[in-house]
Amino acid sequence: MRLSELSERSGVSAATIKYYLREGLLPAGRRVTATQADYDEEHLRRLRLVRALIQVGRVPVATAREVLAAVDDESLGRTDRLGAALWALPQHTEPDAEDPVVRAAEDVVDALLERLEWHHARETGRLSPVYGSLVGTVATLQRLGFFGDVERLEPYARRMEAVAEVDLDNLERLHDDRERAEVAVTSALVFEPVLRDLRRLAQEELSTRRYGS
Amino acid sequence: MRLSELSERSGVSAATIKYYLREGLLPAGRRVTATQADYDEEHLRRLRLVRALIQVGRVPVATAREVLAAVDDESLGRTDRLGAALWALPQHTEPDAEDPVVRAAEDVVDALLERLEWHHARETGRLSPVYGSLVGTVATLQRLGFFGDVERLEPYARRMEAVAEVDLDNLERLHDDRERAEVAVTSALVFEPVLRDLRRLAQEELSTRRYGS
Repeated sequence: MRLSELSERSGVSAATIKYYLREGLLPAGRRVTATQADYDEEHLRRLRLVRALIQVGRVPVATAREVLAAVDDESLGRTDRLGAALWALPQHTEPDAEDPVVRAAEDVVDALLERLEWHHARETGRLSPVYGSLVGTVATLQRLGFFGDVERLEPYARRMEAVAEVDLDNLERLHDDRERAEVAVTSALVFEPVLRDLRRLAQEELSTRRYGS
Repeated sequence: MRLSELSERSGVSAATIKYYLREGLLPAGRRVTATQADYDEEHLRRLRLVRALIQVGRVPVATAREVLAAVDDESLGRTDRLGAALWALPQHTEPDAEDPVVRAAEDVVDALLERLEWHHARETGRLSPVYGSLVGTVATLQRLGFFGDVERLEPYARRMEAVAEVDLDNLERLHDDRERAEVAVTSALVFEPVLRDLRRLAQEELSTRRYGS
């Protein structure tokens, strides 16, 4: 398809597509004439991912390039490829390892992983930015005096494990590891607000059922 | 307790506490002498909520005041009090009702609520900012071509309903409706990043279990 059709089908303006091409976020099309290039379904898919990164996730261009490099890295096994793509995303909190509250939160997270039998997460824990981010958010809970203990966190973790099962089942229906990595990144960025809203709406529903309106 | 102790126990500086007092976010203490006032456990609890709103949630002061007014409103029933406090929080997306993608997303959300038998959410739907926000996030999914249909959303919604059950069970252990409204607001603000990180860590755990590392 021509650039105009790529723009129409993706809802991304031609000027923005040209910007992504210049920045190397989208691979060049197959040159047809001196002024025209041809784009295929893979360009369309990649364009959606770039848009999710830049427009929805507000990820800086340099970071987006790192994420895409991991998505494209054929040398990685499936877990590492997904992991590298997700780890390249900006993390929300960078806890201060010197802070005693953070060290206490680390103990809580370790005890939680033990109780959940998330042994892989426990072993590779300190390497993963997600582990660091969780320690930071648990430290915030504790500072505010809210539910920052293993007993309160465990039922939430079990339910989020059930959510992650759905995530992985969805990935398994896809055709190749590149597409899996693409969808994992997009789903991390755009699915989180959906889950947040579903939780809040469910709270309203259950509150009305239990207590009336 | 004196202001200095309130500061120490909450981890909030005395200058910030004075600012909250001036802005009417924290009720005045019981005057003891011309220059000293006495604060109690309720001040400490309220201070945690104000901190969650302003420092963690980055909610503007005027909005924080609205949230607190709902939390304090004794005239409301439990559901309405929780609802009013949560609805006063800033919502993330304001969908454009004229956009055909948004209208299609509205149909998807309505069909989803029907299938879930969330009848209360369906009836009061259009009044709730959470409904509007969900329509907006589903419209984003659809624009990006990712899982924006009822079949894909349903298993996530069921799992978030299970999360909301835990939320409400936690609220039920509390002593009064004011405390419930306070905790509901704090948990909406500071618990969402915890759930996000738990989901991502569970993805890593399950991916390693299924595919090795």
